[in-house]
Amino acid sequence: MTAITLAEIAQALGGQLHGDASILISAIAPLETAGLAEITFLSDARLVALLQSTRAACVIVHPAQAEQAQARGACIVTRDPYLYFARLTQWWRKRLGDMPEPGIHPSAVVHPDAQIDPTASVGALSVIEAGVHIGAHTRIGSRVTIERHCVIGARCVVQSGAVIGGDGFGFAKEGQTWVKIEQLGAVHIGDDVEIGANTCIDRGALGNTVLAQGVKLDNLIQIAHNVQVGENTAMAACVGISGSTKIGANCTLAGGVGVVGHIELADNTHVSGATVISRSLTEPGRYTGVYPFEPHAKWEQNAAVLRQLKKMRDRIKSLEKELAATQARVSPQQES
Amino acid sequence: MTAITLAEIAQALGGQLHGDASILISAIAPLETAGLAEITFLSDARLVALLQSTRAACVIVHPAQAEQAQARGACIVTRDPYLYFARLTQWWRKRLGDMPEPGIHPSAVVHPDAQIDPTASVGALSVIEAGVHIGAHTRIGSRVTIERHCVIGARCVVQSGAVIGGDGFGFAKEGQTWVKIEQLGAVHIGDDVEIGANTCIDRGALGNTVLAQGVKLDNLIQIAHNVQVGENTAMAACVGISGSTKIGANCTLAGGVGVVGHIELADNTHVSGATVISRSLTEPGRYTGVYPFEPHAKWEQNAAVLRQLKKMRDRIKSLEKELAATQARVSPQQES
Amino acid sequence: MTAITLAEIAQALGGQLHGDASILISAIAPLETAGLAEITFLSDARLVALLQSTRAACVIVHPAQAEQAQARGACIVTRDPYLYFARLTQWWRKRLGDMPEPGIHPSAVVHPDAQIDPTASVGALSVIEAGVHIGAHTRIGSRVTIERHCVIGARCVVQSGAVIGGDGFGFAKEGQTWVKIEQLGAVHIGDDVEIGANTCIDRGALGNTVLAQGVKLDNLIQIAHNVQVGENTAMAACVGISGSTKIGANCTLAGGVGVVGHIELADNTHVSGATVISRSLTEPGRYTGVYPFEPHAKWEQNAAVLRQLKKMRDRIKSLEKELAATQARVSPQQES
Repeated sequence: MTAITLAEIAQALGGQLHGDASILISAIAPLETAGLAEITFLSDARLVALLQSTRAACVIVHPAQAEQAQARGACIVTRDPYLYFARLTQWWRKRLGDMPEPGIHPSAVVHPDAQIDPTASVGALSVIEAGVHIGAHTRIGSRVTIERHCVIGARCVVQSGAVIGGDGFGFAKEGQTWVKIEQLGAVHIGDDVEIGANTCIDRGALGNTVLAQGVKLDNLIQIAHNVQVGENTAMAACVGISGSTKIGANCTLAGGVGVVGHIELADNTHVSGATVISRSLTEPGRYTGVYPFEPHAKWEQNAAVLRQLKKMRDRIKSLEKELAATQARVSPQQES
Repeated sequence: MTAITLAEIAQALGGQLHGDASILISAIAPLETAGLAEITFLSDARLVALLQSTRAACVIVHPAQAEQAQARGACIVTRDPYLYFARLTQWWRKRLGDMPEPGIHPSAVVHPDAQIDPTASVGALSVIEAGVHIGAHTRIGSRVTIERHCVIGARCVVQSGAVIGGDGFGFAKEGQTWVKIEQLGAVHIGDDVEIGANTCIDRGALGNTVLAQGVKLDNLIQIAHNVQVGENTAMAACVGISGSTKIGANCTLAGGVGVVGHIELADNTHVSGATVISRSLTEPGRYTGVYPFEPHAKWEQNAAVLRQLKKMRDRIKSLEKELAATQARVSPQQES
Repeated sequence: MTAITLAEIAQALGGQLHGDASILISAIAPLETAGLAEITFLSDARLVALLQSTRAACVIVHPAQAEQAQARGACIVTRDPYLYFARLTQWWRKRLGDMPEPGIHPSAVVHPDAQIDPTASVGALSVIEAGVHIGAHTRIGSRVTIERHCVIGARCVVQSGAVIGGDGFGFAKEGQTWVKIEQLGAVHIGDDVEIGANTCIDRGALGNTVLAQGVKLDNLIQIAHNVQVGENTAMAACVGISGSTKIGANCTLAGGVGVVGHIELADNTHVSGATVISRSLTEPGRYTGVYPFEPHAKWEQNAAVLRQLKKMRDRIKSLEKELAATQARVSPQQES
């Protein structure tokens, strides 16, 4: 790929370009490592000192840093440098010409009853079953399975190995054995949703599992049957959501979070990594529950005491009572 | 699919039908949302009040709720409504005609030495290696890999993306480098086992990894080499079982549970979600070990103190000693 | 496969053979269960008593156990019996003839621009995208995806279902919605690396995600974008490493470990299972942070108190103060 001028970038993506518009850019790079033919961005004002040291040909900056940026060389000034950077990566990848082409890879196995928008792409060796709908401009990676009757909106991205519409985990007991409950629902995924690699979204038992518009899921996530996830909620890798739980809109769940079944999380709930949420949360906010790590020997000591916590509290209670009694006996003597 | 009469359902699945047998049913639905042409079930006696409000055409109920159910309309009375519901979903799906057909999808890659029962089904783009046996009526989903010499029983269900018989994780150290131990065992899976989407079951190092009859595994589970899982044990999503561990029969492991290697869990052991089991359990029962979550600021305060637990216990001990000494000095004066 | 003599084994793999070199060996087996035609090994001196009871035809032993081993029958004496065993499994599997053949399975979908060493093997239904390099003797399993421009070294093993080079999880916020940051980097994997089944290694955002030589990853692991993993570091199943984190060389991460983003772990760091590492570790050593499990009822009691830890510490402080004050008042009287 040939290099491109700053003028072309600013023309495509906007922003106020200062400096030599004819400078050639060959790559996008982080502030610390950007080279002489690279464009970079400053989105965190605390890193403003790096403006002095970066060798980048051009820095995308907020108006507050415009003056400092101009003092060192070319810059593009924009209200939200990180957003500008995101759009630049999109534009860059299109220029690279390695975006998936619309259409169905010949090795994919697509049921004749599936309806796939002609602007969507389906990658190599993916399986699209009967009754599936796939919206416009949606990119299905390689080796994805979308099972019968599931619906995927427009402009979604489904990474390789994802399984959408596998059976929910449902059984009735008959004595000691488990009798399968066939999962008769499906999965409904809104527009602009991203599904990570090897992530699994189970079909509903009777109704549907639903991901609202703008939901973003990382890799190796488990979404159980009948879960509902609200708009623009994002989950990092290795999260597991149990059956029939309802996650609100604009939530973030960090890596490894677990949420039990049949509960609700309010909109704007943020859960720290590896935390297990075991009851409904009606108040937005940040929630955490992770055992703080230590050098192993120290952990062993403290973990052993952890099992005596209730006893310790009882001992404190006793101490308080006995001390009060002792004080009562001492005080009158003091006064006398 | 055309609707079906209550009479047909009761004829196929049994139970005592009360009310108009000619009512047409078009779907199965939960009690809360069932509509006028839908059948539902009441398996939890605490929800009996919903009998008044449901619009369902027919409710499957226990004899204890039969009178109330009849008062509102048609019902099917049976000893175990939830089990009846499970059987109904199975019968319903067969009627829908979307059960996998017996036989091997033409896109699957099946080694000529593999033995697949003619009543079994193998989904699109699955890989079945040399020496594999697959039993009668077993359903292998799409994009499943079953590696060399693994054995799958009858009536199993293997969901999409599962990998059965990958190499166990075994290495010997030579200085700082790891030397691979080729995994010469296989995986043996009994009858009536379910394996979830993208779940991995590693082959044994020398002997076999074994899942007994009736085991049910959800999605994204890791079963390491040489693990043995007893009959009818069920594991929810994201569980990890380390090498050579032996899980008893009729156990349940909730989502995200981890079990270390080379230990044994007794029959009828039940482990709460996200708990890590680090030693053998010889007594059946329920075990839990999860950090209780809190609003982040409160968690930060308590987690900081957690690291001083042993010191706190020592301080309580000191207090007890000193208080006793103080009391000893006070008491005689009181008596004097 | 026909049985083989001890002489042939010792000739192929070295070691000092004692006893009847013509004994026929049909399998490798653990010490406890080895039968009369099987070879086994003793790598843990604490198990030396088993030398008396094993029925094995031959035991691989350390010189320190040579005398005892010879007293019971044939043995092979070597400095490192476990390493010898590892090499024996490799040699054995080659004899079995079930090693993957070099070359590309006809069902794999390989981009014409990919460069695959002719000694490498690519399994059934794998997808190798444009610009990928795969080194000599590397074994790619079935149903693996290696996305555009990723590089895999020599003698690597990639298990079935792994996804190498999926998009990193990167978005900029625009109001409440997420704008995708196209991931323009790739994944670079050194020589002698093993990647487990259904493991995901995301491509870098701008630079590369890098696994150094000799890294070993188990199944269902998540390596986020721009992570770097040092030489010979091994991770057990279900580990998750967040973006831009740098793991040192010769580390071990046990199953289910989570590591937050943008931190560094020193060389020779060892993390216990299910521990969450939330800040950089500059000192090598073993780190642990897992809630100790208990019978559920006991856990409930202790977990409830856990939320009052800070209050408990404050109560201890108060007790200490008040007791000191009480003692001060008591002591002078004692002296008087």
